[in-house]
Amino acid sequence: MHEEQLIQQIQLKKSLLCIGLDPDVDRFPELVKAKDEPVLYFNERIIAATHKYAVAYKLNLAFYESMGVKGWDVLAQTLKMIPKDILIIADAKRGDIGNTAKAYARSFFDHLEVDGITVSPYMGVDAVEPFLTYEGKWVFVLALTSNKGASDFQFYPENGEALYQRVLRKGIEWQQGKPSTLGFVVGATQESYFKSIRSIAPDAWLLVPGVGAQGGDLDQVCQYLVRPGGRVLVNSSRGILYASQGDDFEEAATKSAELLQKTMSKYVT
Amino acid sequence: MHEEQLIQQIQLKKSLLCIGLDPDVDRFPELVKAKDEPVLYFNERIIAATHKYAVAYKLNLAFYESMGVKGWDVLAQTLKMIPKDILIIADAKRGDIGNTAKAYARSFFDHLEVDGITVSPYMGVDAVEPFLTYEGKWVFVLALTSNKGASDFQFYPENGEALYQRVLRKGIEWQQGKPSTLGFVVGATQESYFKSIRSIAPDAWLLVPGVGAQGGDLDQVCQYLVRPGGRVLVNSSRGILYASQGDDFEEAATKSAELLQKTMSKYVT
Repeated sequence: MHEEQLIQQIQLKKSLLCIGLDPDVDRFPELVKAKDEPVLYFNERIIAATHKYAVAYKLNLAFYESMGVKGWDVLAQTLKMIPKDILIIADAKRGDIGNTAKAYARSFFDHLEVDGITVSPYMGVDAVEPFLTYEGKWVFVLALTSNKGASDFQFYPENGEALYQRVLRKGIEWQQGKPSTLGFVVGATQESYFKSIRSIAPDAWLLVPGVGAQGGDLDQVCQYLVRPGGRVLVNSSRGILYASQGDDFEEAATKSAELLQKTMSKYVT
Repeated sequence: MHEEQLIQQIQLKKSLLCIGLDPDVDRFPELVKAKDEPVLYFNERIIAATHKYAVAYKLNLAFYESMGVKGWDVLAQTLKMIPKDILIIADAKRGDIGNTAKAYARSFFDHLEVDGITVSPYMGVDAVEPFLTYEGKWVFVLALTSNKGASDFQFYPENGEALYQRVLRKGIEWQQGKPSTLGFVVGATQESYFKSIRSIAPDAWLLVPGVGAQGGDLDQVCQYLVRPGGRVLVNSSRGILYASQGDDFEEAATKSAELLQKTMSKYVT
């Protein structure tokens, strides 16, 4: 999906909402658990209940891989259920040397045909570059994550340019002249660093997980990070998927998605 | 596999050899390409040809994932071919927040039943800890990698403790009191830093890729990094798998593995 198409969807739906399809069978409503294919049923119902408000779906591969071999089949079938005008991101956090990164790029962009992927910057440029050669594809590089372990390395060193800032700067360099769009993952919980992020990467697309269950504040995210046309995707997973664990899980998911979209609509121009 | 079992194998075989089962169909001999299941056939023949000299096999998941859904089945079947007394490492370079890392740990240790996994440290402690709760399992944290992009972040900052050194130090802290064994990935091409690595992590297990095709020198690796009982696994992939692309690929793989093992045998005590 090209940038203009995503901007069009964002403006049409007045939404920045990315929904994390991270199925956790233990948290499924009883009526879902009783189905033959509970994960597929759940994903299908959640997509039906929320797609009006979403401009992206993000699938964290760990939840599929943890089902064993079958998980890849469930993943492939879930991807087919998502409407074509919605961006699909494989939250894979891959990162490996050149020829291996190329194999991952083929795996995600050619076989699974997702629109975007998350990658880890630790191994540097050759771990990211092979993903950048695909026209109309999206690469989100981890910059400043929402978890507590973020402070182990991402703010290091305390004096001078922190690692996350260096990642932003390098990522922007790597993007030059490449056909894919390079964005960054920035945790919603890191609000005191939003200004610093936008000063280094004023126009970059940001994928922002961590509102809701992880404690990030949606208004803060939108106020400091949104740019004309959006340039931010705000991810919510558990807050929508498990808004209710009863028979009304679909309505609850719809309401929860709608509520987030309403807040977002104030900031989309 | 417990540490003592691996040390026993290392001393028995007088070998530190880890073989990377990274199947690349384009590089297969013609007679392999003609088989119904070329990857399974190739892996089976390579394991048969080399297991006498190997104490570990490492499977880089990118090569399996790039086959699409089928790849996970090939991976699972390949794992079953490997003799029980040889360590199996999933080269996955995963790294994600707590509940996701837990799902990955289940996926690799419970479903695939591999002995070890490689993980990326970028997200910090909660990306690694869930893997450390498994008795007899191995976690290799990326520290200083063999690729050119390693210099983008791993040596940063130039003055003071470099990121890779901080990763080593933090990793050793994380290991304290945990039932798994935490080791590090160190590229064979980084020989000028071997002393620094062993001064911070004198006893840690190191997984060392990058001899052969990537240019690392095996004698240097052994001389500076080997400790009593080994505590190093030296990985070779392409140099063994594609030692010949003719009908004699099995004999060539055997010879290539034997040659590496011979050099290693001088250093194993």
